[in-house]
Amino acid sequence: MLPWRLFLLLSLLSLSFSEETPTSHGLPRPLIIEYPTTAKELDEEQVRLQCDSWRFAVEANNVNPWKTIPQECADYVRDYMMGKGYGFDIDRVSKEAAVYAGSVELSGDGKDVWIFDIDETLLSNLPYYAEHGFGLEVFDPVEFDKWVDKAEALGIQPSLKLYELVLGLGFKVFLLTGRSEEQRSVTIENLINAGFQNWDKLIVRASEDHSKLAVVYKSEKRDEMVREGYRILGNSGDQWSDLLGSSMSIRSFKLPNPMYYIP
Amino acid sequence: MLPWRLFLLLSLLSLSFSEETPTSHGLPRPLIIEYPTTAKELDEEQVRLQCDSWRFAVEANNVNPWKTIPQECADYVRDYMMGKGYGFDIDRVSKEAAVYAGSVELSGDGKDVWIFDIDETLLSNLPYYAEHGFGLEVFDPVEFDKWVDKAEALGIQPSLKLYELVLGLGFKVFLLTGRSEEQRSVTIENLINAGFQNWDKLIVRASEDHSKLAVVYKSEKRDEMVREGYRILGNSGDQWSDLLGSSMSIRSFKLPNPMYYIP
Repeated sequence: MLPWRLFLLLSLLSLSFSEETPTSHGLPRPLIIEYPTTAKELDEEQVRLQCDSWRFAVEANNVNPWKTIPQECADYVRDYMMGKGYGFDIDRVSKEAAVYAGSVELSGDGKDVWIFDIDETLLSNLPYYAEHGFGLEVFDPVEFDKWVDKAEALGIQPSLKLYELVLGLGFKVFLLTGRSEEQRSVTIENLINAGFQNWDKLIVRASEDHSKLAVVYKSEKRDEMVREGYRILGNSGDQWSDLLGSSMSIRSFKLPNPMYYIP
Repeated sequence: MLPWRLFLLLSLLSLSFSEETPTSHGLPRPLIIEYPTTAKELDEEQVRLQCDSWRFAVEANNVNPWKTIPQECADYVRDYMMGKGYGFDIDRVSKEAAVYAGSVELSGDGKDVWIFDIDETLLSNLPYYAEHGFGLEVFDPVEFDKWVDKAEALGIQPSLKLYELVLGLGFKVFLLTGRSEEQRSVTIENLINAGFQNWDKLIVRASEDHSKLAVVYKSEKRDEMVREGYRILGNSGDQWSDLLGSSMSIRSFKLPNPMYYIP
């Protein structure tokens, strides 16, 4: 019986995605509508499933591009970021990366590199996004730059742990960020306050990079590293544009970020 | 106050991952232990968070390689696959891919290609995996081949919808599967029974491909397509080894699969 049940399940899936609530009768609707007592729970389950599905699609790079989080997922994203979910996820990425880092045979010639992105990878801008709807508002670069200038972004502890581990193992650590040359000194200040030190390079956007997509700018910088003889063994970033493109790392680690998308 | 709360939250995250249950006293333990009434719920929440986190890590390609699903996630994966979650996820991938497919300007020279993997992309082996712990058992190629020979895998309806859409738009459809030459005819039979037709190529593993990792074999086949002048515009697969490597597609679509991993 099982295959048949599964066939039904899979065949009926598209039906279950209909957004209309089925009405069980064709009678004129009463003026006062009494919802079944489970309606609220059904709605909540529906929203949770939709937002789970949206988050999976974002993290697997299936939704691309997107400007804001879906309206109906506002509470879901807030709860995820402020609750335990986000913490579990960043901790696991860090641990998986640590297992890999420890398994790599380094050459010892100082050419083995681990790349880290900065925002939502080493530093968390949650205080900013908490004030701006956790991604529900369209990104405002002027407001965000004011926040960056405060150098108050928070260190992401599991990432700091990984950072210190890979440094200790002998990797060269290159920080590759979309932040601009003008933000270099506040970025250094913020990183140091958050416990990060001893990186080998901090690569920021020069004026000629500003018009480039992040995925192009970051690929070009990785291409340069490869031309200089570096081997990119690990790359940690919260955006697919940190990880994809040319001169990709042997292993990439995608940190979760359901709040915004950078192409 | 918010930044401070967030700082505390992020700083304390690693503490919250401790797997030990904190004991609130140092007194000798009573012989009959009374758990707080919420202990079961706490355990359930912990398992759900861990398994959510594991699933995110798998789908973002952070866990790599893995042989079986975590023991504690057996019920979670079964509920996801047999409940609404999987259905929502495959439906969304199909819809996102459809939006992209419809937005692409085709050249009209018959060289625009969409690649589909087969297992867990066009055809579902859920009846097999339901009998084998949904990924809890180590993969048994002999048993699995017996199942494949029955040609009873189920059509994944949202994928069939996408498949028909891209054919209708004028894409060439290439099926690129890890199945072997010996399985070609049962695969064709199964695909046709499930509603798939009019593909342009069905590429299976020849004997010399059997020793290759899937990511290598599939990259080589995409390299060939590119050499023959095809433009790979879309690629749908449930494994990262379907999507990564050389001659990557302009856009890739990762279908969910928390049951098994193919390197």
